[in-house]
Amino acid sequence: MAASLFDSAVFRGLLHDAELAPLFSDSAEVRAMLLVEGALAEAQGALGLIPEESAAFLHRACHEVQIDPSALAAATGQNAVPVPALVAAFGKAVEAPAHAQWFHYGATSQDIIDSALTLRLRRVVAVFEDRIATLLAALSRLAEDHAHLPMAARTYMQAATPTSFGAVVASWGWPVLSHAERLAALKPRLLRVSLSGAAGTSAPLGAQAGEIRAHMARALGLADPGRSWHSTRDSVAEFSGWITGLSAALGKMAEDLMLMSQSGLGEVALSGGGASSTMPQKANPVGLSVIAALARQAVALNGVMQGAAIHRQQRDAAAWISEWLTLPQMCLGLGRAVSLAADEARGLSPNPGAMARAFDDGMIHAEAISFLLAKDMPRPQAQAAVKALAAEARDRGASLVGMVAERWPGRDWAAALSPAAQLGHAPDEARNFAEAARGYAKTAGQK
Amino acid sequence: MAASLFDSAVFRGLLHDAELAPLFSDSAEVRAMLLVEGALAEAQGALGLIPEESAAFLHRACHEVQIDPSALAAATGQNAVPVPALVAAFGKAVEAPAHAQWFHYGATSQDIIDSALTLRLRRVVAVFEDRIATLLAALSRLAEDHAHLPMAARTYMQAATPTSFGAVVASWGWPVLSHAERLAALKPRLLRVSLSGAAGTSAPLGAQAGEIRAHMARALGLADPGRSWHSTRDSVAEFSGWITGLSAALGKMAEDLMLMSQSGLGEVALSGGGASSTMPQKANPVGLSVIAALARQAVALNGVMQGAAIHRQQRDAAAWISEWLTLPQMCLGLGRAVSLAADEARGLSPNPGAMARAFDDGMIHAEAISFLLAKDMPRPQAQAAVKALAAEARDRGASLVGMVAERWPGRDWAAALSPAAQLGHAPDEARNFAEAARGYAKTAGQK
Amino acid sequence: MAASLFDSAVFRGLLHDAELAPLFSDSAEVRAMLLVEGALAEAQGALGLIPEESAAFLHRACHEVQIDPSALAAATGQNAVPVPALVAAFGKAVEAPAHAQWFHYGATSQDIIDSALTLRLRRVVAVFEDRIATLLAALSRLAEDHAHLPMAARTYMQAATPTSFGAVVASWGWPVLSHAERLAALKPRLLRVSLSGAAGTSAPLGAQAGEIRAHMARALGLADPGRSWHSTRDSVAEFSGWITGLSAALGKMAEDLMLMSQSGLGEVALSGGGASSTMPQKANPVGLSVIAALARQAVALNGVMQGAAIHRQQRDAAAWISEWLTLPQMCLGLGRAVSLAADEARGLSPNPGAMARAFDDGMIHAEAISFLLAKDMPRPQAQAAVKALAAEARDRGASLVGMVAERWPGRDWAAALSPAAQLGHAPDEARNFAEAARGYAKTAGQK
Amino acid sequence: MAASLFDSAVFRGLLHDAELAPLFSDSAEVRAMLLVEGALAEAQGALGLIPEESAAFLHRACHEVQIDPSALAAATGQNAVPVPALVAAFGKAVEAPAHAQWFHYGATSQDIIDSALTLRLRRVVAVFEDRIATLLAALSRLAEDHAHLPMAARTYMQAATPTSFGAVVASWGWPVLSHAERLAALKPRLLRVSLSGAAGTSAPLGAQAGEIRAHMARALGLADPGRSWHSTRDSVAEFSGWITGLSAALGKMAEDLMLMSQSGLGEVALSGGGASSTMPQKANPVGLSVIAALARQAVALNGVMQGAAIHRQQRDAAAWISEWLTLPQMCLGLGRAVSLAADEARGLSPNPGAMARAFDDGMIHAEAISFLLAKDMPRPQAQAAVKALAAEARDRGASLVGMVAERWPGRDWAAALSPAAQLGHAPDEARNFAEAARGYAKTAGQK
Repeated sequence: MAASLFDSAVFRGLLHDAELAPLFSDSAEVRAMLLVEGALAEAQGALGLIPEESAAFLHRACHEVQIDPSALAAATGQNAVPVPALVAAFGKAVEAPAHAQWFHYGATSQDIIDSALTLRLRRVVAVFEDRIATLLAALSRLAEDHAHLPMAARTYMQAATPTSFGAVVASWGWPVLSHAERLAALKPRLLRVSLSGAAGTSAPLGAQAGEIRAHMARALGLADPGRSWHSTRDSVAEFSGWITGLSAALGKMAEDLMLMSQSGLGEVALSGGGASSTMPQKANPVGLSVIAALARQAVALNGVMQGAAIHRQQRDAAAWISEWLTLPQMCLGLGRAVSLAADEARGLSPNPGAMARAFDDGMIHAEAISFLLAKDMPRPQAQAAVKALAAEARDRGASLVGMVAERWPGRDWAAALSPAAQLGHAPDEARNFAEAARGYAKTAGQK
Repeated sequence: MAASLFDSAVFRGLLHDAELAPLFSDSAEVRAMLLVEGALAEAQGALGLIPEESAAFLHRACHEVQIDPSALAAATGQNAVPVPALVAAFGKAVEAPAHAQWFHYGATSQDIIDSALTLRLRRVVAVFEDRIATLLAALSRLAEDHAHLPMAARTYMQAATPTSFGAVVASWGWPVLSHAERLAALKPRLLRVSLSGAAGTSAPLGAQAGEIRAHMARALGLADPGRSWHSTRDSVAEFSGWITGLSAALGKMAEDLMLMSQSGLGEVALSGGGASSTMPQKANPVGLSVIAALARQAVALNGVMQGAAIHRQQRDAAAWISEWLTLPQMCLGLGRAVSLAADEARGLSPNPGAMARAFDDGMIHAEAISFLLAKDMPRPQAQAAVKALAAEARDRGASLVGMVAERWPGRDWAAALSPAAQLGHAPDEARNFAEAARGYAKTAGQK
Repeated sequence: MAASLFDSAVFRGLLHDAELAPLFSDSAEVRAMLLVEGALAEAQGALGLIPEESAAFLHRACHEVQIDPSALAAATGQNAVPVPALVAAFGKAVEAPAHAQWFHYGATSQDIIDSALTLRLRRVVAVFEDRIATLLAALSRLAEDHAHLPMAARTYMQAATPTSFGAVVASWGWPVLSHAERLAALKPRLLRVSLSGAAGTSAPLGAQAGEIRAHMARALGLADPGRSWHSTRDSVAEFSGWITGLSAALGKMAEDLMLMSQSGLGEVALSGGGASSTMPQKANPVGLSVIAALARQAVALNGVMQGAAIHRQQRDAAAWISEWLTLPQMCLGLGRAVSLAADEARGLSPNPGAMARAFDDGMIHAEAISFLLAKDMPRPQAQAAVKALAAEARDRGASLVGMVAERWPGRDWAAALSPAAQLGHAPDEARNFAEAARGYAKTAGQK
Repeated sequence: MAASLFDSAVFRGLLHDAELAPLFSDSAEVRAMLLVEGALAEAQGALGLIPEESAAFLHRACHEVQIDPSALAAATGQNAVPVPALVAAFGKAVEAPAHAQWFHYGATSQDIIDSALTLRLRRVVAVFEDRIATLLAALSRLAEDHAHLPMAARTYMQAATPTSFGAVVASWGWPVLSHAERLAALKPRLLRVSLSGAAGTSAPLGAQAGEIRAHMARALGLADPGRSWHSTRDSVAEFSGWITGLSAALGKMAEDLMLMSQSGLGEVALSGGGASSTMPQKANPVGLSVIAALARQAVALNGVMQGAAIHRQQRDAAAWISEWLTLPQMCLGLGRAVSLAADEARGLSPNPGAMARAFDDGMIHAEAISFLLAKDMPRPQAQAAVKALAAEARDRGASLVGMVAERWPGRDWAAALSPAAQLGHAPDEARNFAEAARGYAKTAGQK
């Protein structure tokens, strides 16, 4: 355990993310800040704001210089922001004061830090997109394969009516798909460069401020917001909200699977399974537990990010620092949750026999029976009759279907209440999702 | 004070919303549920699922029947959902059992409750759109009118560099505009009918389930999701996130205005102002306080809504009831906050004299001076010189500009540091927002 | 549905609280404010700060005058606080300006509003204490009655080892008991009068300010804080935290019971049970769902209250209003949750047969077997052997105990693994709680 | 930036805590788990449950063995809990299978992990106590030194009446004192050993389970809960609530100081002050911003901890893991916030001249004037007269006191409205706090 489980050596196997963690390392942050400074210098050189030779020198040096993150610690402790320390360390490292005086020209710490963040978020988002595609593929296959596999739908944790496992999988997948679409819409709002100077007016950059920002945006592969976003934090807050929404969607999937795999129900078997230190029989749903824990974390951390959008005046360090304390863990949490969800989706096997047990007492067919009886009697009367019979069946421990057959003989109740007859649109729900997910994959692949 | 301040007679003048509150009244909910049931019956009649005559009767009766919300209380206490009570009360009221047996045919409580919610949210959203337009118009005028009015930009609550009041207004307006655009995108995801039967499979509705849902959606002016969304709550969660984002944006505006109107600064004068019970001089920023309080409320309540998207199995009453406890107050809170923000924007007057006082000690020009000096000396040296001079000026209580003029005579410092020369792109920030807001208004008006 | 479900006529049967709701009504608030003003006048009369005759008049009038809460709405809308309107309405109602001029003498709105709140919270706390006692009695009986009833302990939702139902009940009860003790400790911190004048210095009350506050406190049955607590909100925040803690404890109990009563497990039968609008067999755990929803609500609303303790300067209306928006629903929510929990505890019946089914496959004895075998072989070897056998049993669908008996014959495995032999300290856990709860009841009864 | 800013090298100077961070390191966790296992073995040896020689060996080895945290990563990734990996690593390291088979005998992962947590929290709490004492000493001195220094009390951010700086300091200190007292009360509930075996029944430990736990508790310096607390998380949730309450109290202090030190008011000067990367004059209130950010973080993270108390069944890994993700950062955050608050309290200097400026326009005396006039006219009339005069003074930019003196000559208004005459009980508020804080220090010192 370190301050964060994500930084812990002990929990590395549980939470470490080999693709995402490096993006939130100290050296990645320093590197990203240097790339932003380099792009700024280059843009300013191209537009004549700083000497071209200096611009070229700075741009190259920003790619080449090695700055030890620890060297920034002391001054960052004083200033809260690491940029003054970075400027000093850069100057010291390059030993070229004539050029270095043009480093960070006309920018402010927030320009560099925010741009360095979105630069890394661009890669984070790409990782998310890949993993979402993998997850959607797994869910789409699962939904399709089991579109007709009957299981009990449960409402209030009680058996309600038949559904299919594929339809349940679809209910996990639709919100993932919807979040994939929302991500595409929010990307241009999120992945923007920041360049507005000390307090949002770009004064030292003069008339060319807009051109410099546009140039820099192109060089960094970010969008140009066309304005200052120092104090308008709705873009990062929206991203936080998106992370939360998807984390919660995966949390639902994890909760459903934990419930299905409970001892005594065993409707799905999970791959893997964690051992206990003392109980030899245990195979714990570790991945699902982690997904569920990460969903709770996201919901709470999102509160910090939404509150941080109440960003006072032209820079509110209290709000801004609270973003720093929060967003990396949200990104790492979602990345891990999507990976684990895809692993679970690929590794699980439904157990048709166990699922069928929920049909044994016939209670699950009560609604269907009432509709069938309503063909011959008023519906309220049919409902009341079934309700009474269900109570009697419960007391006697008898099968509702058996009692119905006894009371209203002469119909082929078994056929009418066969799974095939009672799945309703569950198979369609499953297949429609599978198709939509494939459609998304196709579009996403074409990009 | 009632359970909620929104329901209180005492606080009616502070929080009651004559347009929105009726949409969240008990009678509006009952009325909306009846409209949904009526549309369902009509669709089923048109498609032959229930007798056409009964459908016509039910559809008409749903518009005409008067059901006292209190009459639903006892059974709702038993069942958590009011629909069984509604079905019974409807049957009793119409006294036409032959028709009434087709009422609520093949639907489940959640279909009716969720559709009745989105039906009302459609109007809520329309109210939001109108008010946002009003707010944007007010902000856009304010930004334009004061695009060139100099004031101190503040970072960490300290005077940073000059900006213009119009640019500050723009920083309030951009997130509002962004939320207006996001609202347009989320509407089709939110304003959907629900019709999927007991547990999401529409079994009793047979092959025509999809057509019935589509028919019903058209009749109610809602979108057809083409699937069940009983247990996929991302649409309401997204709306909650949107409410939170806009509430926080307004919270920022309110905090900024409270800070600007503080005693001792007085950079803006607010219209209105609340009295104290004991201090005769007080004119408290009541509206701003309420906006800020509502922003905090939204951030917290959003946690409930996001957590409720971890909706277990096919219906999770714990999660669903937590939505009911939460969403109405979020809607009412945002509605009030937007109205109050528009009132404040229209009622305030900036005080140029008070704003100018922040320029008196010249400290705000420190960055500009360093850039001007950097024309004649290396920039780090210029910065260090200004830093030392600023410290000296602070100690002596002297003006930084005066000291600079003394040390480097022969320049027209006053001209170089005039507000007009130092606003940078602040006027553009203001005008660009005003233009974008007008553009939005035009598009919104054309709908 | 009103703004809050607690104020709704439709949901009255589900959430209305006949004891607590009146304490949060508009008229109760007006009444409480008048009682506070009356106590203030009386104290000031007794100490000679205002004319004795006026004090007597005001004190009497505060008990007798009828003020319509709605009459305060307009001015409250202007001032945020209802006290200026109350002062005016009181003056108008009593038509005795010579006396009325001494009404609210030297106090500020916050003194009246905060004292009127704690005055009502004193009764809220008393209701909580009664209900907690009722709940503890029910849980204590349940724990004792079923101290020896074997059931599966579940970790990660998987059967772990045997426990007893009584021990599980004890795990619900201990946090309730702990919260009862914490409530006793926080009461003197919470139930305090407020009297500190305009901004916390009691200036107009002169040298006698402390005596007046003490007198007033005695008259109202509240504690005297001996200082201003206008801007130190830790007492209400602590109460909010306490509500949240107890709500969560009840949430755990509700979740456990929902899981135990799931279709397919049925380890407990609940009394009551909600009907579905379409599924005749359903008996939904409505009360448990409400408890769980209220726990989620409390956790989120607590965030508002904790944030409101960051109360700026000498009165922060944004923070204070956010308390008003929040605390009543927290109190009503907890009150309802404790009542429902007691109802559930009294109404449920465990199903020993269903509980025993979790022992059928013998897996739950894996740990015990490993300890028994460890008497004859090294423990790691015993654990590994049982682990292998458990995997084999799972694959073959055989009983682990049967396989163990086959492999290591010659022991009386059935006796060694009987529930009685394997409950460990579960019965003690149950009885110890029951005893502690009775001890608490005795102490509480003696007060 | 690492996942958490607390683990970052760049931000080490801002957030690293040399006393607390080591307690949350991986090696501290491994070390603490070994100490717990050692104490368990020793207790079992003493009571004859395991061979005495093995107990001695294990106890010694637990103190001596070096286990690399990284070596636990792979198995922890599989099992979520690090204990199975620890047991294996220990066995491998000591190479004494005959003894090692008694390692972790009869315990479960949660016993070890929870006890290892509380063992470290004991030291965390001690650090908190020390720092709180330091902070209280600083605040108490400040309150006393400035008990009579007049400044404007502000309500709704507007000047209200005079108060003293010492009284404002007292409003920061009282909640700190109250939290110190609450900490003393919660310690025995929090700092408890856990030993209840696989699922809370201590079955393998037999009749001596209670004695073993008591023995172990004594050896570790923890309390013996006398029961299982695996699934009753109210103790850690209470601690989380306490951290949040104190964090918020410090947040209020930080916000107040940021407001007081704003450019244009400058009522206090802070020591230190962060530099800007571009604005040479800036001295930003970095420490205050961090305190405020940490308060926001605590409020949000507390939501996770409170939700985690809804801990399902006998072990809920989703809930438990969410505690691990959260509590360390709460502890580190509070530790840092208390240190920073003490630094600020010691480093600040109030600026009497700047404070006095708030009295210039005389508005702050409006209430006092109305009370003085009320000696000669009915109070409502006096209030109305002052209100009218205040409005006139505002319009004319004149001093209210001057206008009052003009209208009602013949009184010594200057004397009546001198700060000394108008501070009310502010000096007492300051001194009473100082005394109470010293009283606490004395009691705390005697422990």
